[in-house]
Formats: sequence, C-alpha cells, structure tokens
Amino acid sequence: MSEITQALEVLRKGRFVDLTHTVHSEIPRFGPFPKLVAETIFTVENDGFFVKKVTFPTQYGTHIDAPEHFAVDHLKLDEIPVRQLVLPICVIHREEAVAQNPDYIVTKDDILAWEAENGRIPAESFVAFASGWSRRWESGDMENKDEHGVPHSPGWGLDALKFLFEERGITAVGHETLDTDASSDVIGKGFLYSEKYVLDENKFQVELLTNLDQVPSTGGIILIGVPKFQGMPGFPVRAVAIVP
Amino acid sequence: MSEITQALEVLRKGRFVDLTHTVHSEIPRFGPFPKLVAETIFTVENDGFFVKKVTFPTQYGTHIDAPEHFAVDHLKLDEIPVRQLVLPICVIHREEAVAQNPDYIVTKDDILAWEAENGRIPAESFVAFASGWSRRWESGDMENKDEHGVPHSPGWGLDALKFLFEERGITAVGHETLDTDASSDVIGKGFLYSEKYVLDENKFQVELLTNLDQVPSTGGIILIGVPKFQGMPGFPVRAVAIVP
Repeated sequence: MSEITQALEVLRKGRFVDLTHTVHSEIPRFGPFPKLVAETIFTVENDGFFVKKVTFPTQYGTHIDAPEHFAVDHLKLDEIPVRQLVLPICVIHREEAVAQNPDYIVTKDDILAWEAENGRIPAESFVAFASGWSRRWESGDMENKDEHGVPHSPGWGLDALKFLFEERGITAVGHETLDTDASSDVIGKGFLYSEKYVLDENKFQVELLTNLDQVPSTGGIILIGVPKFQGMPGFPVRAVAIVP
Repeated sequence: MSEITQALEVLRKGRFVDLTHTVHSEIPRFGPFPKLVAETIFTVENDGFFVKKVTFPTQYGTHIDAPEHFAVDHLKLDEIPVRQLVLPICVIHREEAVAQNPDYIVTKDDILAWEAENGRIPAESFVAFASGWSRRWESGDMENKDEHGVPHSPGWGLDALKFLFEERGITAVGHETLDTDASSDVIGKGFLYSEKYVLDENKFQVELLTNLDQVPSTGGIILIGVPKFQGMPGFPVRAVAIVP
C-alpha cells in the first residue's frame, strides 16, 4: 500500500454524506430557466442499449458556479484547477437562527464565533452555510414569499465573504439556497453583490447543497464531482462530504 | 485536525492526474449519437449573468456507464452507491503491446502477469486498461478502420473481466476506447459481450479515459465525479487519479 491508498483506507472508515439533490425535471429552479428535458433515444428492447438525451441549463440542481457565471474573462468550469475540487469543509451551522429569522444574514461575527469554538478557518478550504433551507426542496418553496409576494430567504453577508476569502484564503463557499445573497439584500441593493464578489474574486461556489445538517462544523472534507465541459459558466455537481 | 482531514493532507501531497477529456461539440462519439449543442441563454452584458443550455447524449466524452445502460432493472446512475466513486486504481499497462497489435485483447493471463509483478488486485478497486488509445482522441480516429473499412481497436476479454469481478471482487473497470470489447470480438461475436457482462453484473465502467500513461500500475486512487441525474443510463464524468 502507498501512502495514498492508506489515506483512502482512512477515508473509507469515515461516513459519506451525499450533499446533492437528485436532479429531475420537477426540481426547484430559478424561474426564467428552462426545466430538464430527458428523452430516451435508444432502448435495450429495440437497440440493445439504453441511452437518453438530456437538455438543461448549466445552473440546475445542486450546481457549481464558475467565476465566468458573473465575471467576464474569469475561470470557466473546465479551467478550475482539479485540486480545488477536494477540500476540507467547515460548516457554519445556523439552522436554528434561520428557523427564527428566515432573513438571516451570515456576518463576519458569525465566522469569528465559529473560530472561537472550532479554531481558525484553514486556508484552501470550503466553507458552507447550513441554513436548513434544503428542507424546503421537496415542497419547491425556496423563495418563501410573504403575503405581499416579498421573498424571505437567508444568505451570505458581504463582510463574511470578504473576511473568508481575504483574511483566511479559503477556496470556495457553498449554501443550501438558490442564491448567495439573502433576499432582503437583493431587494435592498438591487443586485446579488455577495455572489458577484465571490465570482469577481475568481473563486467558485456550490449552490443548493443538502444534508449539511449531517456534517460536523469541522473535521470533514468535501469532494466536488463535475464533468469537464468546455467554456461553461457552471454545471450540476455531485458534492459528497466524508466526515468522522 | 481529524483523521479524515489528515488523510486529505496526504492526498494533497500526491500528484493529481486528470483522466478526463474536455467535452465540446466536436469530440469523437459513437456515430449514431447526436453531438453536444450548447446555447447561450443569458449573458452578463444583457442579464448580469452568463448561463448556457446544453443538450447531449448520456454516453458522451469521458463517461460512466451505469448497469442500466445494457441491463434492464439494474442500477441507474443515481443509484450507484457514492462510496463506489472513490476507489484504489490498478492500471494494466499494455500501451506497447497495443502499438504492435491494435486488435489486442486483455486476457486473464495479463491480469495474472500484473499480479506477479504488483501483488493481488485488491477487492473494491477500479481496474483500468491503459492502451494508449487516448492519443487518437485529437485526430478523432478512435475506430482505426483498415482499407476495407474494418475497425481495429483493442478491448477487454471476457475471461479477464470474469476473473476480476468474480475472483477478485473489484468494483469497476475503465478504458481509453469507445467500447469495452475489442472490435474483432464485436465483429466475431456480433455483440459487445464484455460490456454486457460488466453491466449484467450490476457493475459500472468508465469509458474514454485519458492520461492513464501517467498513472502507475499500483498505489493510486481514482475519484469519479458525476452529477446525480435521476434514472439515467450514464453521464459524462470527471475522473481524477491521485498518485504517489
């Protein structure tokens, strides 16, 4: 056994937590995007093998946003270094706070509180905001609109992201919601400035994660599996945590 | 640091070898399959963000074949256990033999010769046939037809696969070619019986791998990253080896 295969043995003793929603044509999506169309083009009965043809937008289901999604002439999907797809994962658990206040915004103070409990956020890591929002997936109600049609969903504050990327040197962020920004920030500021910040930094993010409640604050790793399509702004991923 | 994050530190000291061809609309493909169509549906200039819509067959580029591809009521893409996507990788290097004889078929004797040199193939591993065939990718000539239009491409012999799955308990196989079977076997037997065997066993395979020549016979691991689309017979993957 090499050191590499020995390390795999250690990982295999861990718990695998699938952070990925299963993709089908009726999953929640950003309104203007088309839904998945899957067409059977060959069958075992007629052709000896089964093949489908699929059509979907690059931002669909649990997906990665490459920097190019918002930032022209930044990294596209196939240009993200493959080493950045295997990272330690730190989870900011705010499920209870979000249950109390769906407009919750993660601030730098949340990160400092996390560090007081768990130690410094390591450089080249993945930091996830666990909001509990994935529990809404099955119902499809990811926007949580009130009686006036105003959405109320939580998100990353710009100060938290600046601290994580600039002071801690992390590689990527992730969350359970459709957007990086809290809906109140999008309404107040008129744009997704937190998302734009991440992508302008030439960093990536993973959206619509699930099962983060099963991932401890620290001690786990995340594998982000995504095909290598040329020049794409993002793509559905398989995100898996391996945890103690 | 947990044991899991310590194991990641070991992996990060390894060499990452991308086993994946970049996907675009002009890559080699099985003749009757449609090519990738990618359409820009939102732009940063007009909409503030860049999104594409993609259409392609499930077996395209470096891809996984789920058992359901050939075997009705077997595992579909989203049903493959996620633990099976992280495996030790053993590579049967036959680049030179294939250069001499493009109709080369990997037999049980090849596996026994590998074991005499490297030790027993471990259970729950991924075994790849390195044929050097990926060097043909850029030219598009994956079939290697002779002057009579007869293809000559190498493949897995059925006895080698039966030995690997039944006597060694491996999890999956992979290769650089379009098919599991050598073209001479497909012509002689009238069907892809090696591929059918793998999928009938409810095991999966990864086709059209590249850069296997950079992976040592033993000591490495493979990560197979693939989105979790429901009910699919396969999908393009990101396959990455981490090697000493």
